[in-house]
Amino acid sequence: MGKVEGKVLVAQGGGPTAVINQSFVGIVLEARKYPQVHRVYGAVHGIQGIVEETLVDLTESTTHNLEQVAATPSSALRSTRMKPTPEVCHRIFEVCRAHDVRYFFYIGGNDSADTCRIVNEEAKKADYELRVIHVPKTIDNDLRVTDHCPGYGSAAKFVAQAFMGANHDNRALPGVYIGIVMGRHAGFLTAASALGRMYPDDGPHLVYCPEVPFTKKKFIDDVKAVYKKYGRCVVAASEGIHDAKGILIAEQFMGGEKDSHGNIQLSGNGGLGDLLAQWVRDGAEIKRVRADTLGYLQRSFVGCASSVDQHEAREVGEKAAQYAIWHAQDGSVAIRRVGDYAVEYFLTPLETVARHTAEMPRKFINKDGNDVTPAFMQYARPLIGPLPISARLGAPAVKKVLGGGKAK
Amino acid sequence: MGKVEGKVLVAQGGGPTAVINQSFVGIVLEARKYPQVHRVYGAVHGIQGIVEETLVDLTESTTHNLEQVAATPSSALRSTRMKPTPEVCHRIFEVCRAHDVRYFFYIGGNDSADTCRIVNEEAKKADYELRVIHVPKTIDNDLRVTDHCPGYGSAAKFVAQAFMGANHDNRALPGVYIGIVMGRHAGFLTAASALGRMYPDDGPHLVYCPEVPFTKKKFIDDVKAVYKKYGRCVVAASEGIHDAKGILIAEQFMGGEKDSHGNIQLSGNGGLGDLLAQWVRDGAEIKRVRADTLGYLQRSFVGCASSVDQHEAREVGEKAAQYAIWHAQDGSVAIRRVGDYAVEYFLTPLETVARHTAEMPRKFINKDGNDVTPAFMQYARPLIGPLPISARLGAPAVKKVLGGGKAK
Repeated sequence: MGKVEGKVLVAQGGGPTAVINQSFVGIVLEARKYPQVHRVYGAVHGIQGIVEETLVDLTESTTHNLEQVAATPSSALRSTRMKPTPEVCHRIFEVCRAHDVRYFFYIGGNDSADTCRIVNEEAKKADYELRVIHVPKTIDNDLRVTDHCPGYGSAAKFVAQAFMGANHDNRALPGVYIGIVMGRHAGFLTAASALGRMYPDDGPHLVYCPEVPFTKKKFIDDVKAVYKKYGRCVVAASEGIHDAKGILIAEQFMGGEKDSHGNIQLSGNGGLGDLLAQWVRDGAEIKRVRADTLGYLQRSFVGCASSVDQHEAREVGEKAAQYAIWHAQDGSVAIRRVGDYAVEYFLTPLETVARHTAEMPRKFINKDGNDVTPAFMQYARPLIGPLPISARLGAPAVKKVLGGGKAK
Repeated sequence: MGKVEGKVLVAQGGGPTAVINQSFVGIVLEARKYPQVHRVYGAVHGIQGIVEETLVDLTESTTHNLEQVAATPSSALRSTRMKPTPEVCHRIFEVCRAHDVRYFFYIGGNDSADTCRIVNEEAKKADYELRVIHVPKTIDNDLRVTDHCPGYGSAAKFVAQAFMGANHDNRALPGVYIGIVMGRHAGFLTAASALGRMYPDDGPHLVYCPEVPFTKKKFIDDVKAVYKKYGRCVVAASEGIHDAKGILIAEQFMGGEKDSHGNIQLSGNGGLGDLLAQWVRDGAEIKRVRADTLGYLQRSFVGCASSVDQHEAREVGEKAAQYAIWHAQDGSVAIRRVGDYAVEYFLTPLETVARHTAEMPRKFINKDGNDVTPAFMQYARPLIGPLPISARLGAPAVKKVLGGGKAK
């Protein structure tokens, strides 16, 4: 067992997910069991809260409150988009030392893993015992090493249920429906739009991920072909679709606000959906075309978490506390898939997860680049847990008596 | 008991809801109990299916299939936006007569009620015994006479859960969030955005319904005031907000596709949200502004129906069959609220519901025109059933050691 006595500090970074609080509560409840842990602190607004020393004391938060928080989407400690510059990381280390923090847990994506890596190096240089664990979360599912990321399963479930409904709606009132899905570089979430399909003619009929270059002509031809076959068409397109040169389709339309990491702001506006809808109206000459941008609901909608995702997010939090406090280890918690379907957890070095992201494997996208494959369905289905009931009516046609003419 | 033997015909019209199939299944299962009902038919794509004589036979659909369909959002018989011209209504009557249909049920909004009224008159003129019942459904909750409409509670629950999540998200990463809600003329659905608020500073902080004229200046001043107070702001705005002259704010931005009823197409694009976001960026000089248009998910998302709404939708369907077949009556089924909270059903003449819609009572909107009142909360809360868990963390602040300065 790690013998170092001191405090625990937990922070949450980046975009919220439906289960990031499960990981947070997993860390807090597990950490509170160890006698060498004097207090359990939380940083308000992630590393910004550490820099500004805005901390809360979670040692005596009630278990009921923590369990209610665990079931609530979004980051209960609140989050930040602050860029972890070397100065910021140095300050984080200083604040940890000033408060006698010996165990630092940061729940976030690849940027957060990089923050952990730098803070860990600072502590080593200063010969200060500080265990640093990165706890993975992202709806994009784009972290390296791990089989999948906590947060993805719930966002995928939301997207699947949204497209199940959109498919029924589009069957009831035919036309073209385009749904824009989050995912800057990785198509995992857009691909999840297909997870609720049951019948061969169920939508989404076309799925466009950022892993495959997107062309206007191919898109319009695809929509025309589906529309001709089924008299309707449901499209799922990633916000990150781009042309062969890597230029975002969305950039052809938007001003392009950038965040502090230099990433262009894709979500929070309806530009891309409206552009694609216009292309279909003009290019395919179809009148009834609708576009929805699923937006922030994908990561924060209340009441749609995947049960599998909830449990795994809780467990990566618990394991994080155990790796640091029992085993005195640093690293990033990762998930290994075993069998079909079970998981094991392991720790991977921070530098293997930091900074870089993963794309979706090409084998998850069909040859034409406009749909997912059975391999993707097998990969993703266990992650979203059971879907709600969705059924079509079974009833035979009635023989026409009048000959079925149109109204005069 | 109505003694006329013959067939039952059921149709669904207008925009789908999460519970319109409950009403449909309520009619079918109840109608199949009566010996004078020879067959139960469904019209595919509403009155368009009747006109074209595209009918299905529901007499032997399995109860399991019907129950699964009842739990599924959107119109299982599929829907239509076909305008019920006098010619169309005459044709509907002719098809009913040709198939020996004696009981016609049409589930829809005020346009569907008007169709029922005209078909009923045609039958009387021709001295053909035809019972015609309108079964109410609309997410807008804008039908006359009835206390509320089946379909509203579930859409309201979706909107409430969306804003609960958006509020958590906006607390985690502060800025201005604008959510655009369906509802052309009635603010009921936009007002539902407030139903998940718990703490005094929970969003939505501003709620704009179409019942009150909207001005750009007042909107920007409102956002500035909230942002100054809380450092963040969540806004719910109806797609139907308009200026004092009645000109839609959305029209200042969009092409304005119109449907066959001459209504401008507001949903299915992100224009209004993007316009309001731009106004805040420019007028309030706030950088992080995001807008989502909740879109079709509001009416068709799978897995978010209100349990109260489901039961009531089923019951209006059952009652419809009873009014027609037991009691040989024509009319529109309506809901009366008794106590707090229970309901009774009654039949109201078709002409009291046909064509015209209802606005939301002014007492449900505050004096300033930018929020709902406790009267609205009391009206709407019973309709959405229980909401999912949503909690804030309870934890005291930690005393600063370093003085809480910023990073160098």
